[in-house]
Amino acid sequence: MPPDSTYSLTIRAQIQATVGMFGRVMAAIGDAGAEVGGVDIVRSAKDTVTRDITVYARDDAHGEAVREALAALDGVEVLSTNDRVFLSHVGGKMTMRNRVPVETRDDLSMAYTPGVARVCMAINGDPERVWDLTIRGNSIVVVSDGSSVIGEGDLGADAVLPAVEAKCMFLHEMAGIDGFPLPVIERDPAKMSEIVARITSVFGGVHLTDIAPPRCFEVLRTLGAAIDIPVFHDNQEGTAAALLGALLNGLQVAGKRLEDSTIVVAGMSAGGIATVRLLAAAGAGQVLAADRNGAVYRGRAELDPELEWVAEHTNPDGLTGSLRDALAGADVFVGVSGPGILEPADIATMADDAIVFALANPDPEVDPAGARRHAAVVATGRSDEPNQINNVLAFPGVFRGALDAGARTISEAMKVAAARAIAARVADDELRPDYIVPSVFDKGVAQGVATAVRQAADQA
Amino acid sequence: MPPDSTYSLTIRAQIQATVGMFGRVMAAIGDAGAEVGGVDIVRSAKDTVTRDITVYARDDAHGEAVREALAALDGVEVLSTNDRVFLSHVGGKMTMRNRVPVETRDDLSMAYTPGVARVCMAINGDPERVWDLTIRGNSIVVVSDGSSVIGEGDLGADAVLPAVEAKCMFLHEMAGIDGFPLPVIERDPAKMSEIVARITSVFGGVHLTDIAPPRCFEVLRTLGAAIDIPVFHDNQEGTAAALLGALLNGLQVAGKRLEDSTIVVAGMSAGGIATVRLLAAAGAGQVLAADRNGAVYRGRAELDPELEWVAEHTNPDGLTGSLRDALAGADVFVGVSGPGILEPADIATMADDAIVFALANPDPEVDPAGARRHAAVVATGRSDEPNQINNVLAFPGVFRGALDAGARTISEAMKVAAARAIAARVADDELRPDYIVPSVFDKGVAQGVATAVRQAADQA
Repeated sequence: MPPDSTYSLTIRAQIQATVGMFGRVMAAIGDAGAEVGGVDIVRSAKDTVTRDITVYARDDAHGEAVREALAALDGVEVLSTNDRVFLSHVGGKMTMRNRVPVETRDDLSMAYTPGVARVCMAINGDPERVWDLTIRGNSIVVVSDGSSVIGEGDLGADAVLPAVEAKCMFLHEMAGIDGFPLPVIERDPAKMSEIVARITSVFGGVHLTDIAPPRCFEVLRTLGAAIDIPVFHDNQEGTAAALLGALLNGLQVAGKRLEDSTIVVAGMSAGGIATVRLLAAAGAGQVLAADRNGAVYRGRAELDPELEWVAEHTNPDGLTGSLRDALAGADVFVGVSGPGILEPADIATMADDAIVFALANPDPEVDPAGARRHAAVVATGRSDEPNQINNVLAFPGVFRGALDAGARTISEAMKVAAARAIAARVADDELRPDYIVPSVFDKGVAQGVATAVRQAADQA
Repeated sequence: MPPDSTYSLTIRAQIQATVGMFGRVMAAIGDAGAEVGGVDIVRSAKDTVTRDITVYARDDAHGEAVREALAALDGVEVLSTNDRVFLSHVGGKMTMRNRVPVETRDDLSMAYTPGVARVCMAINGDPERVWDLTIRGNSIVVVSDGSSVIGEGDLGADAVLPAVEAKCMFLHEMAGIDGFPLPVIERDPAKMSEIVARITSVFGGVHLTDIAPPRCFEVLRTLGAAIDIPVFHDNQEGTAAALLGALLNGLQVAGKRLEDSTIVVAGMSAGGIATVRLLAAAGAGQVLAADRNGAVYRGRAELDPELEWVAEHTNPDGLTGSLRDALAGADVFVGVSGPGILEPADIATMADDAIVFALANPDPEVDPAGARRHAAVVATGRSDEPNQINNVLAFPGVFRGALDAGARTISEAMKVAAARAIAARVADDELRPDYIVPSVFDKGVAQGVATAVRQAADQA
């Protein structure tokens, strides 16, 4: 990985005000293999200048090496160093704000007693009014048990919180939604569903995240059945919708049609299962699923309920071989599994103008550059490669649309609508092999997804 | 009740632009018994002026009568009416805001992947870091089952939400705390405690509100024992702390000392029980508790666990009579019960320079004006009488102080400290019979309470 803001430090240094001194500081940073992100003057005195130098490093040890390189220079005194990533999380990444004032007697009478009693009674008389007289109509709870924290595994309900907060930030930034981070200290899926079901009277939807399979499947199913507001798991359904959106554009670039294509999905974890389901709902031609035991087929030993469904709804010819067997002649490879399970040569066995989505992060299923030699379109989950597929493209708009529609569930049709809206955000005349996915920072994506999801919900 | 903002309407009316017309409109409002809160011009045309007239009425029917009175005037057309209280609640009374940006790739790398993984791992390695690297250090969850909604009784977890939101507003406005409203759909105290305990990894404290006795006692006890963050029930402990603060000042005005005084507490619901406990902790002389069955004494039939505690810790002489029997010769009457249970003549049986806190709302235990003829100090829960005692004086500062101290519980000493800080906010040379309680809008109260509570926590 090149140096980037993931490991960035701000080094405050007092530097002698002599000709060439600042150049030597910059050179020392470069010699240490780091990049300078910015320089600010803090204080300028007669003989010295104090500067804040923001440095991108590769990791903690590298950052420390840069600091030591500066400290070793004659004429430089390092005053302090700050880890910018940690600074950005200090105190948490969100806050509550009041939307009406409570500064005068008059405010109090309206927002609280005695006026609030009338509002409570109005909801008591007509429970539907909770949607317009409280925050419920714009509130989503982001729930996790911390069992599958982005790339780090099972960290639990305390350590997952920074990641859950980040999901809330996206809900707000992309879709204007009030997201509440709520890790739950419970590992039994039925009990977790029960707990969440009993605290949802203030929420318009439940956003599940970072929950490991197979629990995530059961929580999604039991909670969805228990409450009458939408439940959506970003690692399953968000990934599937973003992926389908990118695939629709990739197929167009490659001159293929979804209903005619053979699609191999490798990795039957949360995202893989959901992708298979969504591909089926969207009318994909033939879907072949594979896990570490090879192709999934009817009658394979020890299928869990999720794989049982997959076996019954995919692989009509009953292929029983390995992933590589499945891949031969396929139009599309979708990897949501692990690093380096394929070689570029395996991609060469696919049909002409193949599409390769190698989404394992940070190390894809196949080297993207190698895959590109044999495929028409290659996408990954990495931000430093073209065509990054990220579930952030899907979930803010999906929840916005569901809230606006007053939807009680997120149907497969709504997810397909979300995928089509993500795809549509890249105009036909913009589509290229290295541009099939809109930017995660393009707020028009969430708007488009929200509109499409609301329409799909209204038609249900 | 006089007309006030509890029932206020904004009436938009198109009024003929002729001399004297506006005066006739104002007169019609006054003749209807309402008050004008403000007038704004919306549009001025050649022959007409459109105005928004804010009118304070007594209730819904009165508001409608005012509207009809205006509509009946020649030269006036009522275009619309808006209920200002409902308008102030539309969409809910709070919102989330991001504290750091997520607008660029650099932001994303720090707030979310890949940077957030380092932050999650830091908490995983040292769980205490959750307090500074997430929102936890400033977050309080406001929990209710909706079983005792301010003056309206058992409305449930939907209809209580506007009141719970209001508590969050106070936490933010007075103490800069991020409060999350979280009604819980559960009536069994043990199960409710279990649910709340499992969602507290993101919160620094639990604020219970609007929960009916006896459940509120058990939730406070079992939840407090189950989790290592403070649990505080405003209707119990908040009321008790605010009341004790006012009492300390009332005693000073009356020239009495807490340790020498006989205090009769009437009403053994949530606030009454907590008041008895806090008076005992603060070193009150003699406390006599009474409920609808008269004095509480050891051995009285059918005492529940709470009253059992009260019987064992009060009434050392074993008085067995009525509330009136207890009142004779007492220094202080504290009513947290129901309307009109005493006559002014009953107050005359108390000791000289008696103190009367008649806090039943909106109708006090004894007529305040009548009580004032026989007592040195009278306080109520009403905003239109001097000396309004409101738990808003206590809870924002209590939670601020507890969060700042990293407290795991709210001890009786912390509550007594809160009461003393509330009392101290009225300077000795300001104290008067009609000024023993600071204003609920004085933000210095929460600051003083926070400092005192933090110090008391640190000394524990």
